[in-house]
Amino acid sequence: MKATLISVGTEILMGQTMNTNVMFLSQELNKIGVDVMYHHTVGDNPKRLRELMDLAYKDCDVVITTGGLGPTQDDLTKEIVTEALGDHLVMNEDILQQLEEYFVGKGRPFTENNRKQCMLPSQGEVFQNHKGTAPGFALEMDGKIAICIPGPPWEMEYMYNENVKRFLESKSHQVLRFRDIRCYGIGESQLETELLELINGQTNPTLATYAKENECFLRIAAKADREEEAMAMIDEYLPRVRQLVGSYIYDENGTELKKVVANMLIENDITISCAESLTGGMFASTLVDNAGISKVFDRGLVTYTDRAKIQELDVEPDVLAIHGAVSAETAMEMADGVRRMSGSKMNVSCTGVAGPDGGTEEDPAGTAYIGVSFNGRTTAYRIQTRNLSREANRNATVMAMLNIVYRRLQQYLEEQAAKKAEEN
Amino acid sequence: MKATLISVGTEILMGQTMNTNVMFLSQELNKIGVDVMYHHTVGDNPKRLRELMDLAYKDCDVVITTGGLGPTQDDLTKEIVTEALGDHLVMNEDILQQLEEYFVGKGRPFTENNRKQCMLPSQGEVFQNHKGTAPGFALEMDGKIAICIPGPPWEMEYMYNENVKRFLESKSHQVLRFRDIRCYGIGESQLETELLELINGQTNPTLATYAKENECFLRIAAKADREEEAMAMIDEYLPRVRQLVGSYIYDENGTELKKVVANMLIENDITISCAESLTGGMFASTLVDNAGISKVFDRGLVTYTDRAKIQELDVEPDVLAIHGAVSAETAMEMADGVRRMSGSKMNVSCTGVAGPDGGTEEDPAGTAYIGVSFNGRTTAYRIQTRNLSREANRNATVMAMLNIVYRRLQQYLEEQAAKKAEEN
Repeated sequence: MKATLISVGTEILMGQTMNTNVMFLSQELNKIGVDVMYHHTVGDNPKRLRELMDLAYKDCDVVITTGGLGPTQDDLTKEIVTEALGDHLVMNEDILQQLEEYFVGKGRPFTENNRKQCMLPSQGEVFQNHKGTAPGFALEMDGKIAICIPGPPWEMEYMYNENVKRFLESKSHQVLRFRDIRCYGIGESQLETELLELINGQTNPTLATYAKENECFLRIAAKADREEEAMAMIDEYLPRVRQLVGSYIYDENGTELKKVVANMLIENDITISCAESLTGGMFASTLVDNAGISKVFDRGLVTYTDRAKIQELDVEPDVLAIHGAVSAETAMEMADGVRRMSGSKMNVSCTGVAGPDGGTEEDPAGTAYIGVSFNGRTTAYRIQTRNLSREANRNATVMAMLNIVYRRLQQYLEEQAAKKAEEN
Repeated sequence: MKATLISVGTEILMGQTMNTNVMFLSQELNKIGVDVMYHHTVGDNPKRLRELMDLAYKDCDVVITTGGLGPTQDDLTKEIVTEALGDHLVMNEDILQQLEEYFVGKGRPFTENNRKQCMLPSQGEVFQNHKGTAPGFALEMDGKIAICIPGPPWEMEYMYNENVKRFLESKSHQVLRFRDIRCYGIGESQLETELLELINGQTNPTLATYAKENECFLRIAAKADREEEAMAMIDEYLPRVRQLVGSYIYDENGTELKKVVANMLIENDITISCAESLTGGMFASTLVDNAGISKVFDRGLVTYTDRAKIQELDVEPDVLAIHGAVSAETAMEMADGVRRMSGSKMNVSCTGVAGPDGGTEEDPAGTAYIGVSFNGRTTAYRIQTRNLSREANRNATVMAMLNIVYRRLQQYLEEQAAKKAEEN
């Protein structure tokens, strides 16, 4: 199935709003085997919208519009879309009643504008809006499908997940299912090279690689008559991927590294604290992104100056004087320092040159040393980013810190499990 | 002048890449008075690209394409665009020579693919690429303008700023200039209401309001024959805006609050430290976003647990026991604690319920207390976010912290200036 996405909204054309909707929809449609051929954005202009609809149906089976359904706007999107497929709008009494009840319940007046929202195609399927007031719909006429959903991302995403996905999947005889395998420490082109024998000549399941900032992932997708069958095909295929690139894989279900690390800490009741220099609190903040982290996260010390490193972390002044603030030795002193202060089990630190300027020949901008004090051992690692920007350097350092914590935890948990198995 | 933006790239259609280019270009074109009527995204498909070009010239004077110029891709974009305007591609010997020299200089082989990049329209203006290898161009035929620029954002933005902006401005007899006035503590609709007497009946300069996360800004734009004239019109208009909403304005040149605060601290040599709970290091990290902050930023303490608050900040255990961790009293203890530890002049703290769950009836999720210890006085403020998400709550808290620091600094600097004036 082929699709065109049309975003209706002047605020996108004026550059006030980032069009995140098309990225979300493109990713999601891709997952269920729908190919996206066009993205269009137009204002509230009937003629232009109609021209794009007609253009779309030259190549595509489905047009999905987002936006233009709100009560304060003219109902142009719905009217044009419905007309383009040869249907017309009528008052949907069920939706009208629901919406009136909703407004009464909230103690808000039900205005004429709100009645307009209940004008919907005479045919097709209506999607109730559980996150807002404007309903959406899907209309199919002569093999052409049009789907209209609201523009606010939280309403749009909810309606896609609740209604649109199921509607589109019901149009196909087969289901497409996938699994995202997340990797760290390997570039996309190298990942592709390592997997070449699988990628060449693939049919079903298929394997594709994707790059993200500081990491990449690969997607195994399978088509089958039933969901369980597709999932089983993927599970059967997975060991072949593990065999080739297993050492880079940190998660096989699409979970982000920060969440994987947070879950490992929480599930195993391992407390964590950190000491940061160049990342300036970004590592702590990334951990705190995870709800429930308060169970294991004790403290983070952002020691930007040498003085703060000495006072807060008890870093040996001689170490700073001899090796400098940006060194493996200082990173280890910081990790040990935060361990002594916090008594946490896992302690991680970083010190480096945030850039984009500064640094030395030996340690240019983008260099960072990461210290870890865990399970009676303190070690340090050096990373060198590409120094594309201050932000990129700091993001890359946080990812490297998460990865080191992950590797150390994984090794530790495996050892513990082995010890336990031996005892039994 | 009216414009259509066409992005060429399968990775955008697949949802792998966020289309930030159209947001950048829409904002920038808006600033020079060019109205954007359409955004389109297509893959490398000659027929579809040509159809969109033809559609564009029905309404628009200018088509700007991004992407599809790289050496590994077919030169479809350039060919189709050039053809659509009735010109053809020829080898541009100047660019060829430059590119060959560039490759020799880098010690990289000059492949056949790279020669292809030097095929450019026989007419029009070539834009050299100083951030990559693919040149761009502008072509004008029979009043229709086509501009092709590379897809990677850093190349695209550089070429827009260096070439495209000047080219488009040269097509207009007038220049449009603007100033962005940034506000905090007022919603967009209230801002609009306050400015109604100016917004109604405006012609030149014009005034428009824009909402951003946790703040809004207003743009004064003026058209004139010369740049200085337009700027003078804006300067003359500005006092009328100040009179109506001056108390909400924190910057009159479009600078973000984090940068405004960092500059105030650096210029006045005021050291800063912070103690965070719910924001988990995000305030420190936001400060560290500013290059040069190391001059004044000493340390940040992320004290997530009560134990960490007591150990690191010397928070009185009784205060925690009586008032709780989420209270004005604890926020003030934290701010005083970090002041004692750091000796910084400005000390700011926060404690609250990050959400989305948790909290009490009195202090639900999204409540935060902000403490400030500065210039011999310690105070606390309470904020209540809309609890849309954990991330939104934490972002709102950081903005509120920045605003409080800004207000306190501003007051202090004014007092200092007044004192100095009195002395003289």
